[in-house]
Amino acid sequence: MNQDANPQWQRDAVRGALAFAQAERPRFVRELADFVRFESVSAEPARREQVARCASWLAARLDSIGLERVRIVSTPGHPIVTAEWLQAPPHPTLLVYGHYDVQPSAPNAAWSSPPFGAHIHGTSLVGRGASDDKGQMWAHVKAIESFLRTSGRLPLRVKCVFDGEEEIGSPNLLRYLAAHARDFAADAAIVSDMPMLGLNRPALTESLRGVLSMEIEVLGAPTDLHSGLFGGVVDNPLNALCKLLAGLHTDDGRVALPGFYDRVRTPPHHERAYMARVGPAAADVLRAAGVARGTGEPGFTPYERGTIRPALSVTGIVSGHAGSGGKAIIPRRARATLDFRLVPRQDPREIAELLGRHISAAAPPTLRVRTRTLVVSDPVTVPRAGPAIEAAVDAVHAAFGATPVFIRSGGTVPVVHLLRRWRIPTVLMGLALPNDGMHAPNERLYLPNLHSGIAASIQFMARLAWPFALRERRAS
Amino acid sequence: MNQDANPQWQRDAVRGALAFAQAERPRFVRELADFVRFESVSAEPARREQVARCASWLAARLDSIGLERVRIVSTPGHPIVTAEWLQAPPHPTLLVYGHYDVQPSAPNAAWSSPPFGAHIHGTSLVGRGASDDKGQMWAHVKAIESFLRTSGRLPLRVKCVFDGEEEIGSPNLLRYLAAHARDFAADAAIVSDMPMLGLNRPALTESLRGVLSMEIEVLGAPTDLHSGLFGGVVDNPLNALCKLLAGLHTDDGRVALPGFYDRVRTPPHHERAYMARVGPAAADVLRAAGVARGTGEPGFTPYERGTIRPALSVTGIVSGHAGSGGKAIIPRRARATLDFRLVPRQDPREIAELLGRHISAAAPPTLRVRTRTLVVSDPVTVPRAGPAIEAAVDAVHAAFGATPVFIRSGGTVPVVHLLRRWRIPTVLMGLALPNDGMHAPNERLYLPNLHSGIAASIQFMARLAWPFALRERRAS
Repeated sequence: MNQDANPQWQRDAVRGALAFAQAERPRFVRELADFVRFESVSAEPARREQVARCASWLAARLDSIGLERVRIVSTPGHPIVTAEWLQAPPHPTLLVYGHYDVQPSAPNAAWSSPPFGAHIHGTSLVGRGASDDKGQMWAHVKAIESFLRTSGRLPLRVKCVFDGEEEIGSPNLLRYLAAHARDFAADAAIVSDMPMLGLNRPALTESLRGVLSMEIEVLGAPTDLHSGLFGGVVDNPLNALCKLLAGLHTDDGRVALPGFYDRVRTPPHHERAYMARVGPAAADVLRAAGVARGTGEPGFTPYERGTIRPALSVTGIVSGHAGSGGKAIIPRRARATLDFRLVPRQDPREIAELLGRHISAAAPPTLRVRTRTLVVSDPVTVPRAGPAIEAAVDAVHAAFGATPVFIRSGGTVPVVHLLRRWRIPTVLMGLALPNDGMHAPNERLYLPNLHSGIAASIQFMARLAWPFALRERRAS
Repeated sequence: MNQDANPQWQRDAVRGALAFAQAERPRFVRELADFVRFESVSAEPARREQVARCASWLAARLDSIGLERVRIVSTPGHPIVTAEWLQAPPHPTLLVYGHYDVQPSAPNAAWSSPPFGAHIHGTSLVGRGASDDKGQMWAHVKAIESFLRTSGRLPLRVKCVFDGEEEIGSPNLLRYLAAHARDFAADAAIVSDMPMLGLNRPALTESLRGVLSMEIEVLGAPTDLHSGLFGGVVDNPLNALCKLLAGLHTDDGRVALPGFYDRVRTPPHHERAYMARVGPAAADVLRAAGVARGTGEPGFTPYERGTIRPALSVTGIVSGHAGSGGKAIIPRRARATLDFRLVPRQDPREIAELLGRHISAAAPPTLRVRTRTLVVSDPVTVPRAGPAIEAAVDAVHAAFGATPVFIRSGGTVPVVHLLRRWRIPTVLMGLALPNDGMHAPNERLYLPNLHSGIAASIQFMARLAWPFALRERRAS
C-alpha cells in the first residue's frame, strides 16, 4: 500500500503542512512582497522586460519548492509559467491557475505608498497585484510548498499554469492551452482571482461575466485646428465621440445598442431568491465601491446589476489637451476605450459586430470612425455541485470557520470558460476582500486571508484526494 | 524745423529702413529662429523658467536695437516686456502689442521637425510660435530696428508691450495695463496676431470673437473601480461627462445651452454681403482646415459660422486609462475643457454662469460636478475707418502690392477689447497665412510674409506720422 492511500497518513500530512505554513508566515509574506515588487503590467509594452523578469523569478520559486518540469513558455506576448508534480499516479490531477501579470498602476499620485512598493499597512500588504492576483495565487503555491517540505509529496497530482496576460484577456494562454489540451488534462481546477463576500464571509464563485473591450477612434482634420478660427465651422471629433458614447445608454441606464439584450435571459425566480438570501446586500455592494448611491438598470438589485445583467463602462478617453490649463484646439482625433461585461448566451464577438455597425451608422459623415476589439472573453457559469465543489466547501469551512456560500461575480477570468468547455470541474475560491481595490489605486491583500487561503488550499488538496485514497485503500 | 517734420526726410528714412531690412533678411530670420527656440509655453507651469528666459532674451534684443526704458515687468504669472522710444514729442504715439508666449506643442509626435527646433522648410520657418505670435510681432520689432539703425530715430513715438500670457487669456497683462493706463496712452495701436486672407491677399481684421474657456469635472467614487465588479452598479463619471457634453449641442449643430443665443444679433444684410464679397469662400475656409466638408449652424456660410456666430468646442478630455491597451476601470473622475467663442453682446461671464447652472442641474445626483472658468475674453469689433486704418491700408498696399480687405476673425486677442475700451484706434494687421497652423502641430511662418510685414510696418509708422509732419511743417 502506498503511503498516500493511507487516510491516517493524509491526516498527518495535512497537519504537518498546516503547522509548517503557520510557522513560515513571515517568510511567505516577505516572498509575496518580493513578487509584488515586479512591475509586471501586461498592458504596457514598456514593461515587457519587467513581466519577463517576474516570470523568471516565479519559475525559480516554483523550482525551489520542489515542483517539477518548471518551464517558462515563450509566447508572442508575455510568457506562461508552468510546473507540475505528478508522483501520485492513481490520484486525481488538480490544475492550479493564477496570473502574475497586473493592471496598470496609474494614477500613481492616488496611491498612499508606491504602487510597487509592497508596503505593509496594518494587516494588509499594499501594492498593484497584491490581491489581483499575485496574493491569491500565492496561497496555492505556498500550500504546495507546505506539503512538499513536510511530507516530501503532495496528496494528489498537480499541474500549475501561471498566466502573464490575464489582464489583457489571456490571448496567448488560451491559444497555448488549446494547442496542448492533453498536457493539461485534469480532474479538477482551482482558480483564486476574485473577492469573497466579506471579512470572515467566504464564498465560492459560480459565475463570471464575459468581457468585450473595444476601442473607438474618431478622426477629423489632418491636424489639430485653432478652435477660435475653426470652432463652429469644422466637425470636432471629440464632440462627436461624446455624442456617440452618450447614445450608448438610455436615460434609465440600459445599454442602448440595438440587439444588445436579445440573448439575455433573467435567471429563474429561485436563483434570484438565493442571490438575495446569501449574496451581498445593496449596502455591502455600495460600501465596497465607496459610494453612497448606486445606479443601473431598473428592476434589479445592485448585486444583480453587477452579475446577472450586462453593462457598459467607458474606461478611458484621451483627446486634445491633457496638460494643465486649456489649449484652444479642435483635436484632430479622439479615442475612447469601452468595457462591456456580458452575461450567459451573449457572444462578445457578436456584440463587437453590433457596436461596429452601430457606430459607423451613427457617426457624422464629416468624420471617420474606427472600432477595434481589444479583449474578448466569454461569460461562464460553473456547477454548484460535484466532488471538487464539495471538497472546496469542506476545505473553506475548515480554514475560515464558516461555510462558503455561492456568489456570482461581475468580473472575468478568461481561462474559466475554456476549463468549462473542457468539462474540468472548476473551483473559483475567492480570497480577496470586496474592498481590497482590485484594479484601483491602493490595491491590497488582507494578510489573514493569505494565511487562511493557504490553509484552505492544503485542506482542499487533501479532501479532493480523499475519495481516491479511500477507494484505493479498499482495493489494496 | 526738426528733421522728422520734413517730408523729404521721412521719404528718405523709409527708403533707408526698407533697404536695411532687405539687406538684413538672413539675420532677421536667424534671430526669429532663436526666438522660436524658447519653449515659452505659458499654460505649462513646468515651462515657467523657459518663459522667463524668453522674456529676458527679448528684452535684451529690444535694448540692443535702441529702444529705451526696456523693462521686464514681473507679474504673479509670466512677465510682460515693455519698451519705448519717445523722442518725437509732437508726433503721434503708436502702441505695438505682441505676445512672446506660445501654445503647448503637444502632440509632439505629429510634428515633422521638433516643435522648438525652428527648422526652415522651404520658404517657411517651422516651430511653435513661428506665426503665433513670435514671427508676427517680430515684423514690428525689426521695422523699429530698421529705422533706428539707419536714421537714428523713429518717425513717431512708440510704446511696445509684449505679453507673456496671451495664450492663457492675458490675465496679468490686462490688470497691469488697467493699473497703468496713463503710461500706455497712445494715438493708435497695432497688433499682428491673426491670419491674412491668403497668399498675396492681405487683410485687416475688424472683429475678433470673445472666448470663454471652462473646465468641467465630474467626480464619482473615491477611487477608480473595477469595471467588471462594479460596471452597471455605480455611476461612471466618464459616461456622465459624455452625456453632459453631448447635451450641449443640438442635432443641427447649434449650442444647446439655454439662453446662449439671447444676446446674439445677426449683422445687417449689407455687412453679410460685404463678407460674402471680400471674405474667404467656403472652399478657402475648408482648405485652410484641411477638410473636405464642414459643419455648423444652418443658414450661415463657413466664414460666417467662424466669425459672426458663436461656437463651442470640447478641446480636451482626460479620464481613465491613457496608456496603451485597455484598463478595466470605472474612472473616479473625468475632466473636460471647453472653449466657447462668443460674438458681440455676449458676455463670457454670463455664459459661464449659464453653463455652471445648466451642468449642475443636468448632472446625475449620484455624482458631483465642478465647473471652473479658465479664460475669459470679450468679443470686440474695431472701426473700419480713421487715420490709423487709412495709414495701414496704404502701408499694406505698398508692402504687399495689393489693397487689404476687411475680414472678421474667429480668434481672440484679449488686449484688443481693452484698447477698444480705451478708444485707441487699433490696426489688426494679420501676417500669417490661413494654413500656417496657428495652435496646430507644424506651425510655421511663411517667411516672405515676415519681410513684407516688416516693410508694411515701416510704411505704417511713416504714414501714421505723415499728417502730423505735414501739419507741423505748415505751422513752422
